[in-house]
Amino acid sequence: MRIFVVNGPNLNLLGHREPEVYGYETLEDIEYFIRTRAEQLSVDVSFFQSNHEGQLIDAVHDHRDYDGLIINPGGLTHTSVALADAIAGVRLPAVEVHLSNVHAREEFRRHSYISPVSWGQIVGFGYHGYLVALDLLHARLREDDET
Amino acid sequence: MRIFVVNGPNLNLLGHREPEVYGYETLEDIEYFIRTRAEQLSVDVSFFQSNHEGQLIDAVHDHRDYDGLIINPGGLTHTSVALADAIAGVRLPAVEVHLSNVHAREEFRRHSYISPVSWGQIVGFGYHGYLVALDLLHARLREDDET
Amino acid sequence: MRIFVVNGPNLNLLGHREPEVYGYETLEDIEYFIRTRAEQLSVDVSFFQSNHEGQLIDAVHDHRDYDGLIINPGGLTHTSVALADAIAGVRLPAVEVHLSNVHAREEFRRHSYISPVSWGQIVGFGYHGYLVALDLLHARLREDDET
Amino acid sequence: MRIFVVNGPNLNLLGHREPEVYGYETLEDIEYFIRTRAEQLSVDVSFFQSNHEGQLIDAVHDHRDYDGLIINPGGLTHTSVALADAIAGVRLPAVEVHLSNVHAREEFRRHSYISPVSWGQIVGFGYHGYLVALDLLHARLREDDET
Amino acid sequence: MRIFVVNGPNLNLLGHREPEVYGYETLEDIEYFIRTRAEQLSVDVSFFQSNHEGQLIDAVHDHRDYDGLIINPGGLTHTSVALADAIAGVRLPAVEVHLSNVHAREEFRRHSYISPVSWGQIVGFGYHGYLVALDLLHARLREDDET
Amino acid sequence: MRIFVVNGPNLNLLGHREPEVYGYETLEDIEYFIRTRAEQLSVDVSFFQSNHEGQLIDAVHDHRDYDGLIINPGGLTHTSVALADAIAGVRLPAVEVHLSNVHAREEFRRHSYISPVSWGQIVGFGYHGYLVALDLLHARLREDDET
Amino acid sequence: MRIFVVNGPNLNLLGHREPEVYGYETLEDIEYFIRTRAEQLSVDVSFFQSNHEGQLIDAVHDHRDYDGLIINPGGLTHTSVALADAIAGVRLPAVEVHLSNVHAREEFRRHSYISPVSWGQIVGFGYHGYLVALDLLHARLREDDET
Amino acid sequence: MRIFVVNGPNLNLLGHREPEVYGYETLEDIEYFIRTRAEQLSVDVSFFQSNHEGQLIDAVHDHRDYDGLIINPGGLTHTSVALADAIAGVRLPAVEVHLSNVHAREEFRRHSYISPVSWGQIVGFGYHGYLVALDLLHARLREDDET
Amino acid sequence: MRIFVVNGPNLNLLGHREPEVYGYETLEDIEYFIRTRAEQLSVDVSFFQSNHEGQLIDAVHDHRDYDGLIINPGGLTHTSVALADAIAGVRLPAVEVHLSNVHAREEFRRHSYISPVSWGQIVGFGYHGYLVALDLLHARLREDDET
Amino acid sequence: MRIFVVNGPNLNLLGHREPEVYGYETLEDIEYFIRTRAEQLSVDVSFFQSNHEGQLIDAVHDHRDYDGLIINPGGLTHTSVALADAIAGVRLPAVEVHLSNVHAREEFRRHSYISPVSWGQIVGFGYHGYLVALDLLHARLREDDET
Amino acid sequence: MRIFVVNGPNLNLLGHREPEVYGYETLEDIEYFIRTRAEQLSVDVSFFQSNHEGQLIDAVHDHRDYDGLIINPGGLTHTSVALADAIAGVRLPAVEVHLSNVHAREEFRRHSYISPVSWGQIVGFGYHGYLVALDLLHARLREDDET
Amino acid sequence: MRIFVVNGPNLNLLGHREPEVYGYETLEDIEYFIRTRAEQLSVDVSFFQSNHEGQLIDAVHDHRDYDGLIINPGGLTHTSVALADAIAGVRLPAVEVHLSNVHAREEFRRHSYISPVSWGQIVGFGYHGYLVALDLLHARLREDDET
Repeated sequence: MRIFVVNGPNLNLLGHREPEVYGYETLEDIEYFIRTRAEQLSVDVSFFQSNHEGQLIDAVHDHRDYDGLIINPGGLTHTSVALADAIAGVRLPAVEVHLSNVHAREEFRRHSYISPVSWGQIVGFGYHGYLVALDLLHARLREDDET
Repeated sequence: MRIFVVNGPNLNLLGHREPEVYGYETLEDIEYFIRTRAEQLSVDVSFFQSNHEGQLIDAVHDHRDYDGLIINPGGLTHTSVALADAIAGVRLPAVEVHLSNVHAREEFRRHSYISPVSWGQIVGFGYHGYLVALDLLHARLREDDET
Repeated sequence: MRIFVVNGPNLNLLGHREPEVYGYETLEDIEYFIRTRAEQLSVDVSFFQSNHEGQLIDAVHDHRDYDGLIINPGGLTHTSVALADAIAGVRLPAVEVHLSNVHAREEFRRHSYISPVSWGQIVGFGYHGYLVALDLLHARLREDDET
Repeated sequence: MRIFVVNGPNLNLLGHREPEVYGYETLEDIEYFIRTRAEQLSVDVSFFQSNHEGQLIDAVHDHRDYDGLIINPGGLTHTSVALADAIAGVRLPAVEVHLSNVHAREEFRRHSYISPVSWGQIVGFGYHGYLVALDLLHARLREDDET
Repeated sequence: MRIFVVNGPNLNLLGHREPEVYGYETLEDIEYFIRTRAEQLSVDVSFFQSNHEGQLIDAVHDHRDYDGLIINPGGLTHTSVALADAIAGVRLPAVEVHLSNVHAREEFRRHSYISPVSWGQIVGFGYHGYLVALDLLHARLREDDET
Repeated sequence: MRIFVVNGPNLNLLGHREPEVYGYETLEDIEYFIRTRAEQLSVDVSFFQSNHEGQLIDAVHDHRDYDGLIINPGGLTHTSVALADAIAGVRLPAVEVHLSNVHAREEFRRHSYISPVSWGQIVGFGYHGYLVALDLLHARLREDDET
Repeated sequence: MRIFVVNGPNLNLLGHREPEVYGYETLEDIEYFIRTRAEQLSVDVSFFQSNHEGQLIDAVHDHRDYDGLIINPGGLTHTSVALADAIAGVRLPAVEVHLSNVHAREEFRRHSYISPVSWGQIVGFGYHGYLVALDLLHARLREDDET
Repeated sequence: MRIFVVNGPNLNLLGHREPEVYGYETLEDIEYFIRTRAEQLSVDVSFFQSNHEGQLIDAVHDHRDYDGLIINPGGLTHTSVALADAIAGVRLPAVEVHLSNVHAREEFRRHSYISPVSWGQIVGFGYHGYLVALDLLHARLREDDET
Repeated sequence: MRIFVVNGPNLNLLGHREPEVYGYETLEDIEYFIRTRAEQLSVDVSFFQSNHEGQLIDAVHDHRDYDGLIINPGGLTHTSVALADAIAGVRLPAVEVHLSNVHAREEFRRHSYISPVSWGQIVGFGYHGYLVALDLLHARLREDDET
Repeated sequence: MRIFVVNGPNLNLLGHREPEVYGYETLEDIEYFIRTRAEQLSVDVSFFQSNHEGQLIDAVHDHRDYDGLIINPGGLTHTSVALADAIAGVRLPAVEVHLSNVHAREEFRRHSYISPVSWGQIVGFGYHGYLVALDLLHARLREDDET
Repeated sequence: MRIFVVNGPNLNLLGHREPEVYGYETLEDIEYFIRTRAEQLSVDVSFFQSNHEGQLIDAVHDHRDYDGLIINPGGLTHTSVALADAIAGVRLPAVEVHLSNVHAREEFRRHSYISPVSWGQIVGFGYHGYLVALDLLHARLREDDET
Repeated sequence: MRIFVVNGPNLNLLGHREPEVYGYETLEDIEYFIRTRAEQLSVDVSFFQSNHEGQLIDAVHDHRDYDGLIINPGGLTHTSVALADAIAGVRLPAVEVHLSNVHAREEFRRHSYISPVSWGQIVGFGYHGYLVALDLLHARLREDDET
């Protein structure tokens, strides 16, 4: 069972940028938390972060033989049809994660192109969102296996 | 640690109504799954379902000394300012849960009055959403305790 | 053949409230007309009126083993996703009735959440609307039986 | 008592065009059903179908000494102010009929220029809609006569 | 100097239809007034009324060697790009006339496709609008001649 | 002279819920202030608070023989056509009261279904709003009596 | 018979400002043309131009015992509710005049607050608009006199 | 305690203009009522009315050492950012008053630039609105003093 | 293999009307080009142009046993639901052609009712658009045959 | 080289009104800074501030023989077509200046009627904006001279 | 004669991704078809595909000495002003191609930033669209040469 | 004092692309002008141009220890939440520069995601905008130093 964890623009700044909004953990911290949890679940995880829409799309394409996708698209959430098309194109179950509660911020953050092509969304729980995304994908994939 | 789990209109039909959209588990099944998980976490859970906006508001008020709220407001998500005001009024951390991916359905289901007053949202993972909501609240409350 | 006739908020005021808009018949008069017509068609009719969204939803649920639904949702027409979800949930053929021509009044009365989940709408013919709703459901159910 | 039954663009295709949406009866079938019912009610009915907005307007004008109008404006429902003005101009009670539930289809089909100038609307019951339209006009005209 | 006077849908009903809105003069009365005034100005006028968009477009095309156009497009004002394109296509100076003050009626009557392709508009003065339209075109054409 | 004072959802929390927005007085305090003022004016006042839209509508119906209505509809202000219809239906002069200045908060709080069916609105003066509402209704009713 | 001719902001620049849009005649030229025509009709005309909304409103108030109003509100057309209220308040028949075809320019020029409170509009004929406005008011007032 | 009472465009016409909408009292009558009430409360009141936005802004500036503001901005309510900025700039508690129920009239009257910068609004009670505005400001200022 | 080529309002003016927008070829020229190309492809083509929406609909109906449709609906593109319904009704593969790049002109020209019911669109290449439309239909029909 | 510096409503309050938004310098301070800089550049500057739209328009007209315009229209930015028309009318290069970053405040402050008729905008740099506006106009005028 | 064929995000997945929407040919297949056709026409073609907006812009810049552009911008169609500016900047005749009929899919796919800066669009014919794009550019360029 | 000057998509084409819109200076010319001015002010400047959103974000991140940012985001201004988030994330004072007056062009160019997160904007003065941006940042940074 392999899961690809993708982070979009500006998430490399985590822990440094506006910590009162996004939390004090760095992206490295979060990847460490995810890896630890993944080991408990015997899931292989692979990480990718980029500020480039194109690299994110390439990476999604390159991991289409994985079993699931966890994606925090950052600001591209609201603007990238191309990234949404990539996710729809590879036909993997995808969990959209946002660290902050985007519905309590600027109006434009309430619309996501990614949501309609994802399996579900986890919004607003800080880095914990990634961990439960992992749990949810793991549970689903195991269920699928059993069927 | 006490958590109040609230389900809004039509969720009493779960398992019977449009299972291809909402899943095959009944509300009783789901409450059983939640209770089991809560026991593992040593969390007290209390359940309430109603098709009446007013009863839901009353119930939220009556449980304001609880530590957290898990709420699936059903169709009231998109129409009830009063329920959102109730949640804001009791100042409990609230997790909004939706069984189906509301962003892949009718346009009007993409707007929630509840989201801006909740801590976060879990959307689209079927009954699993309640379980991870429990995990997330448990983790937060434990963290708060430690601080 | 059993049909459930549901009237929403303020329809208990019929005959008293703004008769120049809603007509001079009381709800009791109208129910009498419907019952008379139903007897001619050998249809069992059951009536319910409430000003409570929740009670209306409960009542729709409770009559899900009926064969059809005639509903005048009153002001909830324009605001209640939850009632619409209830109708969709019980999967009964539903006829939406309005006494006045809602399309010739305030702009907000032109939108109905109920219409997309109903079989059809009868709008603007005063109490006669209920009678033809009965006729239409009766004709359809008889046709369905024959098939 | 004379009633004019008008059908707009594409209704000549009935029974042939998209029967899963519009039903399997041809326009001739439907006119036969209406005529039969009209004879029972001792109502004179006159029929007209055209794909030309102008001919429909002319026809409405030409029948202004009739007692009532049943009109299915087809696609002109959503686009023709001129046809609506014609109906308002002749001051006949008009019943707007649609075969399919236009509120469950494309968004643009939910707006009708005809509705505000008609007495009422019957939407979604297939050809039965014409028959109850006839019943309703008949009942109203008889009532008017009695007053 | 030849001027073509075009009247659109429902204007044949003038004097009969809603006189409190459109005045008590019939279209024949108005054409008589215009002809009288035209004779005083030594202008040839030609009249056309139709309820058919297509006939109106044909007529505009057929009179493209005239010197000016006076047009009351009736309900097509708000809905006909094709008629506007016809007027733009023949490149005649056109005066748009409305009998009633369309800006004091329904919101949809405030938008005209014809206005941007016309020389100007005269709105709300009853049949007098046609007469001053004639005066204005006459003055302009005489000025153009002099240049 | 009898006046009915109605408070909608969440107003039972007054004094407890977000006092920096809604003030430090409880609903009991406010009712005491109103009763005191009413005694000075020799007005009978009756109070009702509910979080249930249906109960509020029922209560408005039940007090239709009163002389006036003071209503703070809480969150239902922005969402309840049914409550507005109830007020219009009983034809009592109604004063809409809001404790906070709703026009300086979220955009959706700027629209009220209640306002068009009320005599007037008093917005933003904390509990004082109820008192002047009483004064205004008293003055009007006395004036009406004199006429 | 006395008519008040009011010109709003920037019309003092006529003949100087963007003549390709507004024509080559100065405001003085136009007033001279109007006065000449008025003398022929035995109408008293009074002129006022101001760039101040307040002065225009004052002037409208001060001439409320006149028999009619010709007004080119300039840029205030699109922005001044207060000027529209003044015209409605004095209850004079008002003709709204625009030199250029505002419907063929920026989108915001297509909306006028003045139009709904005026008798009619004359748009796009350069200074000729004022002259026919005078003719129209003269004809109406003479008709009113005769009645 | 000094309070400045400001009336905007067209309020000088009160009692004369559309009395069925705005009442039969003149502005002088109303100012007399206010002065009488102010004397009872030992409040100094100063009055100003103008049809000029600029004079209203100047006057608000000139009275910034007053203790409160009562303002009926007339038509500027819906269009003047500058007047709203003036009120915000002087930082006085301001009560916005409207004589008629603006929410039951044209749609554009439902939006106010003044409301977000005022303490509260009193809408629809005729001249009584000014008197309760005075009461409310008096009560607040006395409370502030006590604190 | 038979293909029906339909041209809507004002296309009879081609070559005469605004050639800088629509090109210098007349409709006869274009039909000659199409016929020539059709002969090379051994396709039967039939031509129809009308300024009448109704005639266009009739013609589409009358050619429903053809194999394909090439249609330039002119101004009806943006306004005719009825024509779109006709095309959907006959279930022929249709190619929508526009001579000019409608997306670089007025905003309202960017919306087409025809596009969702057509196989595809060719926009902006002058008369060449018809020729490639023919090629495309020919290729598709040949492919369909082979399957 | 002469430049006219115009300040609109409420800018006379500078230094006093909301200094955390608009800065601590008074308008006199700012005019002093501008004059000093202008002397360095050998530019004649003339100043005008008014809270009256009309006076601002008059002043713009009166300085039409100047070489350039620096304008901070205050709240009129968002509401005054008339002021924008005045600037377009005098055909001077105009620089629009705002002290605060209007794009980070209320939504309505993001739209300016002045921007499309100005040469450019300088937004958000406090009083420095006026100085660089002066520099920019000076540079442009010198360049124009050289050409 | 050299033509640059550009494909945007996700088009590298062609043949693999959602073939029922985009067809069964791979991008390599399509490029082969294009090259074959180009050879027949003696046109040099160069191909480029990228999922990176920036690389697409760079590539467009780098081929500005070509004679024409065929571009399928994929999801960037609806979101990339920058790519549209690049195409406008190089001033090459560009043909916008879409494989599927974007007008029959999600609403957001109906708007293209590329269309206004392209010569024309070919939408919905699968890979055939590229071939006729080539034909059209070839025809135009040959015509241009001849002039 | 170090300032980072960033130019977005298509600005590498400056001097070549649409010079009548963007001016005749190349990006190299402009960078030379900026460097010269920076030397006068003793400011270190660093330049970056890219057509890649991702590279621009990376570059902004990499220069977060600089003292200020001058950015012309080109077409990304209107579409890139991610770039705006990057600027907000590094918390540098940023000046947004546009060469042309974007408010006098297409409607979509009037909205900027960058403006709310920048210190201010300079729009429409050609390359001079960069120079005054430098002056403004220099002045602010010197002021900050002094405090």
